[in-house]
Amino acid sequence: MQQWRRRHGAPSLDLVAGNGLVNRRALLGGGVAIAGSLATAAPTTAAAEPLADAPWSLAVGDFPPPVQTPSPFEKDVTRALSNPNGELRTAHARTPHHRLSGTITPNGLHFSINHGGIPNIDPAEHKLVIHGMVRQPLEFTLESLSRYPLVTRTAFVECAGNSAPMFAKEPVQSTVQMLHGLVSNAEWTGVPLSLLLDEAGIDPAAKWLVAEGADAQFLDRSVPVKKAYDDALIAIYQNGEHLMPGNGYPMRLLLPGYQGNMNVKYLRRIKVIDQPAYSYFETKNYSQILPGGKTWRFHFLMEVKSFITHPSYGLSLKQPGLYAISGVAYSGTGRINKVMVSADGGKSWAEAALQAPIHDKAFTRFVMPWHWDGQPAILQSRAYDDGGNVQPLRAEFVAMRGEASRPVTTPLAFPNQHYNSITSWAVDSKGEIKHVYA
Amino acid sequence: MQQWRRRHGAPSLDLVAGNGLVNRRALLGGGVAIAGSLATAAPTTAAAEPLADAPWSLAVGDFPPPVQTPSPFEKDVTRALSNPNGELRTAHARTPHHRLSGTITPNGLHFSINHGGIPNIDPAEHKLVIHGMVRQPLEFTLESLSRYPLVTRTAFVECAGNSAPMFAKEPVQSTVQMLHGLVSNAEWTGVPLSLLLDEAGIDPAAKWLVAEGADAQFLDRSVPVKKAYDDALIAIYQNGEHLMPGNGYPMRLLLPGYQGNMNVKYLRRIKVIDQPAYSYFETKNYSQILPGGKTWRFHFLMEVKSFITHPSYGLSLKQPGLYAISGVAYSGTGRINKVMVSADGGKSWAEAALQAPIHDKAFTRFVMPWHWDGQPAILQSRAYDDGGNVQPLRAEFVAMRGEASRPVTTPLAFPNQHYNSITSWAVDSKGEIKHVYA
Repeated sequence: MQQWRRRHGAPSLDLVAGNGLVNRRALLGGGVAIAGSLATAAPTTAAAEPLADAPWSLAVGDFPPPVQTPSPFEKDVTRALSNPNGELRTAHARTPHHRLSGTITPNGLHFSINHGGIPNIDPAEHKLVIHGMVRQPLEFTLESLSRYPLVTRTAFVECAGNSAPMFAKEPVQSTVQMLHGLVSNAEWTGVPLSLLLDEAGIDPAAKWLVAEGADAQFLDRSVPVKKAYDDALIAIYQNGEHLMPGNGYPMRLLLPGYQGNMNVKYLRRIKVIDQPAYSYFETKNYSQILPGGKTWRFHFLMEVKSFITHPSYGLSLKQPGLYAISGVAYSGTGRINKVMVSADGGKSWAEAALQAPIHDKAFTRFVMPWHWDGQPAILQSRAYDDGGNVQPLRAEFVAMRGEASRPVTTPLAFPNQHYNSITSWAVDSKGEIKHVYA
Repeated sequence: MQQWRRRHGAPSLDLVAGNGLVNRRALLGGGVAIAGSLATAAPTTAAAEPLADAPWSLAVGDFPPPVQTPSPFEKDVTRALSNPNGELRTAHARTPHHRLSGTITPNGLHFSINHGGIPNIDPAEHKLVIHGMVRQPLEFTLESLSRYPLVTRTAFVECAGNSAPMFAKEPVQSTVQMLHGLVSNAEWTGVPLSLLLDEAGIDPAAKWLVAEGADAQFLDRSVPVKKAYDDALIAIYQNGEHLMPGNGYPMRLLLPGYQGNMNVKYLRRIKVIDQPAYSYFETKNYSQILPGGKTWRFHFLMEVKSFITHPSYGLSLKQPGLYAISGVAYSGTGRINKVMVSADGGKSWAEAALQAPIHDKAFTRFVMPWHWDGQPAILQSRAYDDGGNVQPLRAEFVAMRGEASRPVTTPLAFPNQHYNSITSWAVDSKGEIKHVYA
């Protein structure tokens, strides 16, 4: 590895892996090394004074609305809908990760999946009942939950079917939104479920909860009591405001790191029992079928994973020079402690910079400076968590978990679940980006 | 102090200060102590099975829109506008802190102040020029900035005039939104300004920058070069998506902990110079007039501060029992390391629980369990930061910084700046809440 050189003028880049990966430490200490290398790339030499005045500087602008919305120039930054005409089937809305940065998913763009539509719930009439194996069944409203000492934490929520197109035998050519848009990350605020179970007086013999929603499907899932006591919340705020209708208004179960479907929305009932309920979604939709035909009974954990959002399919590089490779990493086990990036399809790797603070079971953004020389490159990321888990390489993953049992023709087909292997973006010499398996 | 007792059944509360403040450790370890005390307060005994089915559970619901918006039942959770008819004067939009929780301010509700309206900027045509005492003037666009290794951080932005009604000789009866709504907190992503200054080759003799916006006022402020190298960003994302129009789309200066007006929005120019520009806003609006008539030339730092959002003016307590006293604390100096809460107008204090992680120069939410016995109480919070600074008591603050020199008749009058003393909410025996000085 070259020595880190910080000097004014035009320092050479400190390359740390093949195809132009630059030492992440270039991002520290003022970034002179990065700066020097950019002088002929990203910015252009400034025009002489005086600055030209744009038309919007020459007239009074708009006045603020009660609730502000994005610029009209951002009107195509939206969720992708799988069921835009509202037919009587499941409706997915996917987060546009290639148009976002940072770690928070703004509420308007948080992904949602609804199997029976989004109920328009009057919070004054909605109740949550905790009953079953408890000393005293209890009933809660949004107002009564609001009186508790609330807890705030950041957490990703990911559908078990996120990234399902990655099970296809040939790489589906689509954006990171269509491939990986069923995961989002938000700050959630609510009441620890353990507090409410203690208050109801849970029977020590209880092992499971059945959580049930007030949507038209009464969606229900079984949850181990242990998870309830680990870190489950009854969430009533999302990024500071009450939940979005598509995300469970007025209250939802939040099970950090567990598959999205278990984070029951429109929560109306928690029944404490001594065995799982074997409900529809845990015995059919989200049963994990393995190579050879065996099935895992339950597979709750969303495992360590990452994907590159910039650059990615649908974006392009206009000229050689310095870029940032950036994406998100997360693990249902705990904290991300390392993300490795490759620009040569996995032949060599270098460690990306992680944006602090690193939250438990939440998005961590990674950034890797990269000098693109105009030649073909294959970009990959690989995440490591503090539980010792490593995001599997594709060949390993397919051997363990299988590929699609039928052809995948659209990104909306769901042949299997829990894909957490690597995504590879191939940059050609024109700067166009394709999805490849490497 | 009573010993912490964790036992099933009905434990007594561990009271730590006058008028019912409960040990924050009750929030740890399963919360049995809290739970036991609540059994006859917040929740109600559940009805017998079967659960009644609400009308929204009996029909297919709505389908997800491309960008989701809050429930119709949340339609009054909006910013408060000082200039709703768009007259030719400054327009403020205040954050409804009494309707929010957690720490993130959702983008739709982030406060904004615009003196010449909100420009509708085409990002393809907008340029930022860095010039003056540099080796090579440079020009940047949103696209070229997006190629840099971006940095993500959470930061509050607060108008120097936030809480100005608190300078009134008599307490203004108004919500926390009207009193303190000119501060918000978001995750910002952008390019470190130091990187761009290094790239332009800043002259070592340079001491100041003048930052200028592309709004109709060309709002400009002087910023010490030292601050640029400490932690200044050119921010291009806010809570994951591009900036809101009212908050500077497509790019703004972010100076964590410095008065909001310096965080120049619609940033089009940074001129590097060797002395401050003495622009309008730094010589008139935001000059701090002290008792005796002297004025501080500059007063950039937003000092350590906190206020209680729940309960607060406009909310009421319906019955005696357990509540959570909750609010936000922040400091332009660094991290919050302690928040003390009083329920007896400052006669006794107890330490609140702080929600982790505690970010530098960002909102920290504090929570204090409180048993209200139905008697009058005065709720206060007092924040401490890791720089050794303490939020001043009101008498101390008024002696140092003065009161209003003219009567304050509405919360919109701005008699002075940088109020960071304590806010007191008086609860009467009916549970109604007033703003008092105590």
